[in-house]
Amino acid sequence: MSTEKPKLVLAYSGGLDTSVILKWLCEKGFDVIAFCANVGQFEEDFAAVKAKAVAVGASKCIVTDLRKEFVTDYVFEAVKCNAMYEGRYLLGTSIARPCIAKEMIRIATEEGATYIAHGATGKGNDQVRFEMCAQALSPTVQCVAPWRDAEFIESFKGRSDLLAYCNKHGIPVDAKPKANYSIDENLFHTSYESGNLEDAMSPPEESMFKMTVSPKSAPDASETVQIEFSKGIPVKITNTTDGTVKTDPLDIFLYCNMIAGKHGIGRIDIVENRFVGIKSRGVYETPGGTLLRTAHLDLEGICMDREVKRITETLSNEFARLCYNGFWFAPEMELIRHSITFSQRDVDGLVEIELYKGNATITGRKSPNALYNADLASMDIEGGGDAFDYNPADAQGFIRINAVRLKTYAALRAKDQK
Amino acid sequence: MSTEKPKLVLAYSGGLDTSVILKWLCEKGFDVIAFCANVGQFEEDFAAVKAKAVAVGASKCIVTDLRKEFVTDYVFEAVKCNAMYEGRYLLGTSIARPCIAKEMIRIATEEGATYIAHGATGKGNDQVRFEMCAQALSPTVQCVAPWRDAEFIESFKGRSDLLAYCNKHGIPVDAKPKANYSIDENLFHTSYESGNLEDAMSPPEESMFKMTVSPKSAPDASETVQIEFSKGIPVKITNTTDGTVKTDPLDIFLYCNMIAGKHGIGRIDIVENRFVGIKSRGVYETPGGTLLRTAHLDLEGICMDREVKRITETLSNEFARLCYNGFWFAPEMELIRHSITFSQRDVDGLVEIELYKGNATITGRKSPNALYNADLASMDIEGGGDAFDYNPADAQGFIRINAVRLKTYAALRAKDQK
Amino acid sequence: MSTEKPKLVLAYSGGLDTSVILKWLCEKGFDVIAFCANVGQFEEDFAAVKAKAVAVGASKCIVTDLRKEFVTDYVFEAVKCNAMYEGRYLLGTSIARPCIAKEMIRIATEEGATYIAHGATGKGNDQVRFEMCAQALSPTVQCVAPWRDAEFIESFKGRSDLLAYCNKHGIPVDAKPKANYSIDENLFHTSYESGNLEDAMSPPEESMFKMTVSPKSAPDASETVQIEFSKGIPVKITNTTDGTVKTDPLDIFLYCNMIAGKHGIGRIDIVENRFVGIKSRGVYETPGGTLLRTAHLDLEGICMDREVKRITETLSNEFARLCYNGFWFAPEMELIRHSITFSQRDVDGLVEIELYKGNATITGRKSPNALYNADLASMDIEGGGDAFDYNPADAQGFIRINAVRLKTYAALRAKDQK
Amino acid sequence: MSTEKPKLVLAYSGGLDTSVILKWLCEKGFDVIAFCANVGQFEEDFAAVKAKAVAVGASKCIVTDLRKEFVTDYVFEAVKCNAMYEGRYLLGTSIARPCIAKEMIRIATEEGATYIAHGATGKGNDQVRFEMCAQALSPTVQCVAPWRDAEFIESFKGRSDLLAYCNKHGIPVDAKPKANYSIDENLFHTSYESGNLEDAMSPPEESMFKMTVSPKSAPDASETVQIEFSKGIPVKITNTTDGTVKTDPLDIFLYCNMIAGKHGIGRIDIVENRFVGIKSRGVYETPGGTLLRTAHLDLEGICMDREVKRITETLSNEFARLCYNGFWFAPEMELIRHSITFSQRDVDGLVEIELYKGNATITGRKSPNALYNADLASMDIEGGGDAFDYNPADAQGFIRINAVRLKTYAALRAKDQK
Repeated sequence: MSTEKPKLVLAYSGGLDTSVILKWLCEKGFDVIAFCANVGQFEEDFAAVKAKAVAVGASKCIVTDLRKEFVTDYVFEAVKCNAMYEGRYLLGTSIARPCIAKEMIRIATEEGATYIAHGATGKGNDQVRFEMCAQALSPTVQCVAPWRDAEFIESFKGRSDLLAYCNKHGIPVDAKPKANYSIDENLFHTSYESGNLEDAMSPPEESMFKMTVSPKSAPDASETVQIEFSKGIPVKITNTTDGTVKTDPLDIFLYCNMIAGKHGIGRIDIVENRFVGIKSRGVYETPGGTLLRTAHLDLEGICMDREVKRITETLSNEFARLCYNGFWFAPEMELIRHSITFSQRDVDGLVEIELYKGNATITGRKSPNALYNADLASMDIEGGGDAFDYNPADAQGFIRINAVRLKTYAALRAKDQK
Repeated sequence: MSTEKPKLVLAYSGGLDTSVILKWLCEKGFDVIAFCANVGQFEEDFAAVKAKAVAVGASKCIVTDLRKEFVTDYVFEAVKCNAMYEGRYLLGTSIARPCIAKEMIRIATEEGATYIAHGATGKGNDQVRFEMCAQALSPTVQCVAPWRDAEFIESFKGRSDLLAYCNKHGIPVDAKPKANYSIDENLFHTSYESGNLEDAMSPPEESMFKMTVSPKSAPDASETVQIEFSKGIPVKITNTTDGTVKTDPLDIFLYCNMIAGKHGIGRIDIVENRFVGIKSRGVYETPGGTLLRTAHLDLEGICMDREVKRITETLSNEFARLCYNGFWFAPEMELIRHSITFSQRDVDGLVEIELYKGNATITGRKSPNALYNADLASMDIEGGGDAFDYNPADAQGFIRINAVRLKTYAALRAKDQK
Repeated sequence: MSTEKPKLVLAYSGGLDTSVILKWLCEKGFDVIAFCANVGQFEEDFAAVKAKAVAVGASKCIVTDLRKEFVTDYVFEAVKCNAMYEGRYLLGTSIARPCIAKEMIRIATEEGATYIAHGATGKGNDQVRFEMCAQALSPTVQCVAPWRDAEFIESFKGRSDLLAYCNKHGIPVDAKPKANYSIDENLFHTSYESGNLEDAMSPPEESMFKMTVSPKSAPDASETVQIEFSKGIPVKITNTTDGTVKTDPLDIFLYCNMIAGKHGIGRIDIVENRFVGIKSRGVYETPGGTLLRTAHLDLEGICMDREVKRITETLSNEFARLCYNGFWFAPEMELIRHSITFSQRDVDGLVEIELYKGNATITGRKSPNALYNADLASMDIEGGGDAFDYNPADAQGFIRINAVRLKTYAALRAKDQK
Repeated sequence: MSTEKPKLVLAYSGGLDTSVILKWLCEKGFDVIAFCANVGQFEEDFAAVKAKAVAVGASKCIVTDLRKEFVTDYVFEAVKCNAMYEGRYLLGTSIARPCIAKEMIRIATEEGATYIAHGATGKGNDQVRFEMCAQALSPTVQCVAPWRDAEFIESFKGRSDLLAYCNKHGIPVDAKPKANYSIDENLFHTSYESGNLEDAMSPPEESMFKMTVSPKSAPDASETVQIEFSKGIPVKITNTTDGTVKTDPLDIFLYCNMIAGKHGIGRIDIVENRFVGIKSRGVYETPGGTLLRTAHLDLEGICMDREVKRITETLSNEFARLCYNGFWFAPEMELIRHSITFSQRDVDGLVEIELYKGNATITGRKSPNALYNADLASMDIEGGGDAFDYNPADAQGFIRINAVRLKTYAALRAKDQK
């Protein structure tokens, strides 16, 4: 029948914005299926979210626990390539988007929905990431973004309009007042931006943070962990101070979060460049991710060839940019990830790190595939065993040949001065 | 007359190795001019070094205070491009070599010496850096490296041979026993390697460090500094906790060292890749350099265009590699530095950083040339003023066009699965 | 008075599309100032274009001769960096857009127009280039693109609608039938796309080409030219076969076009990637540009350092991509161009090229700044004079040190096989 | 027994230099096993080479036909990534070295030889390539390079010394006088350097060339070929003019050589940068390689994603540099080749090329995996079918968002001018 409503899957959080959007989409004639991804948000009550969605008007609400998949297929992929955007940001929001979008498209396909919708703003990165991922996975899906819709924007010019709409439609509103910043959270990180944080000279308030204590509030006693990797992937963490051991991927990651957060590790405060051409100030806490990146980067030092490292550094920067910009399911990302994976085939071993008041201090590392050779490195012993008879005399030729080009150039410059 | 001895300038430290080398070169028939560069070594007694050089046999000993030049022409150049080798090393040793080599060649030219010599080993980076710089500046100079000389190596197989030689020739020897590691120091950093540190699982002993306290021994009270830059160069530091202000380049840098060292900032422990193809474990402390890099990188966030940043990140990696490998005076380094300098023309402003037990936490930044625009960034306000009327609706087209390529590719992949 | 019409500058060619657009914009209430850029289009009658613009309804028509500026500020900049998009395309259309947009903005400012318009399609690169350049130069200018306007597109679904509109409004129409392809031309190149060329297996018809003869129709006798550069810029061309000499930039370029075109040089047929994510088949002829790029690239071989070359190759690829995508007036383009210019400071000298039936064969090159040194290169003579005493024995150390890393890695791989 | 002579494998060509070296090594006490690689040298009489080796003093002479392996494992790998050094050189000599070195190490292992030797000079690239490859494959093998040996060099200062030595030891000498240049040849290319060619202004003499005719001597009638690729590898060539078809890899390559050489395709004359820091003038002819690279590059245009292309362009440049410098068996080369191979998974299809007097003109291409979509590219039709509903209106948002950054920057620059 043509009377059937078009189905739409809405990324629903249970918060003010997406509840208003849910109702508004119902009013627009959509059969709205609410979807709430569990990517490890802190203290989320998913049953309450589910109930609220249906109360507001969703024909159903699907909550999917994506935590394991998020850790193994996204977070550990980022760890594997030391991903960092603009030298500082660990991509905590960026990397959750493809995971959520993939499930959203899976649900849309299963439910026969041809529309998806989200509550991301029209100035941010997340709209791009959601929709790019969605379109790559399902070229025909239609994306609805109310915060870019002229009518919607006209109707809801500020928080009071949203509240009035809730009041009118009987949508329950969280009692606590709006924070002075906006939050995005998942098990990898929590991000804070907007509001008071828009003043780039204004430091974040301490009460804001959810995953980490301040270094000032961290314990006076340090703890030491050993993190083991296989082919660049974390496979075990051992707290050598208290004997805790974790080997399941999700357990490892949650333990990293807990122990690093406890010691005040992983906060940053930056001005970054959004894909839409706007500079934005963000504060992030990524305790476990910071710990794992530190460990992984160090392990590569001992078992990855210098030139492989040089090339993967470039690939890593590409990975970070592509992830940040929403190109997770792009062909070039497949190429990058394939190459990074190959570069990790010898990245096995263990790194020991002491955690203390914001510091993750490496105290040792070892690998069965170490290219580091203490005898070869030693200034005291000649050579490094039979196969590696390093002869200091060779260095003279090495230097002199490397200088041939420089001497030729120096002669040209000298000519200038005559 | 042909009876005149050939003149040679020796990089002389006053230590055991270079004292033996000095004497040995005299015995080989050179007129040895000792040269000792003051690049800010910790507690060095240059008068004593001078006296010892002449006592051992040098025809003269020249000590040059290169500290100002080292800070302005080398250290601040590295700060300007956020130079970091292999993602972690701030190049403290690498960057002093061209400064020292340049003065050495100046002295050689002035003195009419056609030889230079140094006490660097045949397995390390420093031999390369010294000689590459020297040859680039003076293509005809001859480099003598006793630690690569078969006869010298044969004569001095260990420390006892060196001590016996000193004893025989009345060369005074420092009473304190040899450390379990070797040290290189200048005002930018102190490095430790070899000896006990060759075991990559063995952490450094706390007593080793010279410029920083351990975060565990750092004060319980934090301090806050504001660092100002002009065109990417530090021009002022203000301790807002106690009111100290420094504006002279050398003073700024030494103050950065003091304050960051006091708060336990700037230690790293890594396995790095030497230019001669050997992996090496090194421990470094770079307090002031770490602080300045943190500040500079953050300032770029607010006043450097995203794509300029992307390109200079690549140039920065090249700079680090070239510096590390000894190519300071190479034509490609001129190009890189020229480009970096251009990229800094808007990098003016101030960064505020709180120092606490190993942490340098940014608390704010501002710039007269900020490309960051709080109104434009804001999720609450539409647009960013008249000229920048950002229209959220535009984002839809932006996303959809960026996805054209991905959708085409997805269709190809879908075909595979049929 | 509010009765005054808003002023708009239209990029006007005199052709069917822009004539319809002109009239349509007048009907929409704009005061249309037609602008026709002379960038060296082949056989264009600018007086006729001017007359037609006014006849159709323009309040005035401005024709600017941009040929000199186009050659010196755009074409020679591309030659200077060997610009080539995706390994083949010389950017002939791309590079004219900023030149035209700059003049358009100059006129808009002078005339007090706040709108500009163009006849580029909504699927191509040119809309992007025009508008990106315009907005970079004048952030407040409004761009009108009828071929993206829903009403315009609806009104003009095909050529017959355009013709009917002309008929209705008395707009004169060129008698000759529409070509089976679309053309863009300027003194740097002529491009052909669309129509019959959309079939990627269908070769272009010979009659299509304007600037070059087919190699098959080229003269049987070759001619030889010598092209001289100063700092990477062409400063003189000499035809050594007939003695012709040109030294004025525009004269040099036009002569390059003539002589290379006469010998059938500079055609390509490719599938390229547009910025909007679409692959497109294009056929181009760029006779003078091909000749100059060949010469310039060769000259760099003799007077540019190897590593400077390596770095500028990367910058050149960035330049090409930025130019192609419309980022000529972007901050990153300023950085790239500044860096390239520095890299050219020694690129002085002469290249001799023989032209024959599609081939531009280099027969020799020389430079006052040559880093090429025949004695040093020679396999017969040891060394290259006093300063460059190359010692073959040094090569052994060079090789052995370069192999240290490979041998360490080989040992790791060997372990795998046990 | 200790009286047993150490075994050495010598890369032997049968020419003057390696014959003298063979005898000299025998005199030095080696048991010399001569090895002659058949990599498709033009008109080589391998039986005669074999006989001469034994006559001069080799204990045996092994000739291995490496042509198939050379084509499939080396030449086609280079084609797959469009390898080109410094924008012009197709690496014909470079790419044969690892192939030869691998067989040499295989023989050395089989024969129990711990030494290998070659006749490459101490100033060139080939010594580096041979020895780097050999050491990577067998870290303990010792490399003997007489042309870097002080005694050898002292004994043989010129050609007359070599001839005198032959005369003394009854070594037969080729009757034809020494050419005015040195040659290296294999089935991929022939290179010419040294001698008269050291004058960079002096063109090569026509009689020199072996694989190609001059464009001036090429046939007046063109021929057309269709080349098919599967995953970036040539799998078939069809001469559509005469119906010839080849499908075996070696046959395909030899046919490419023949047909391209017949039409005068593939000569270059350049000054290039050797790894040892010397600039060198070389003339090369690479007929089949030029043809295949042209075809492969074009096919990528139609079936490789734009951003994958961008990344593989960088990898291709790395490949070329690594290959040129002798790092074929390096870990970074494994990474590069692995990545390139992945990038080729859709590079299937056919390219049609017309060959005429030095020109290889593409006349069409098609692919079952084409990302090129004529409907999507078309300026005439809206969209490209259901899944790809390209909406011209989207381009406006795309442009406007891309310009946000430029407008912000323009405002900053405008401020400068106030």
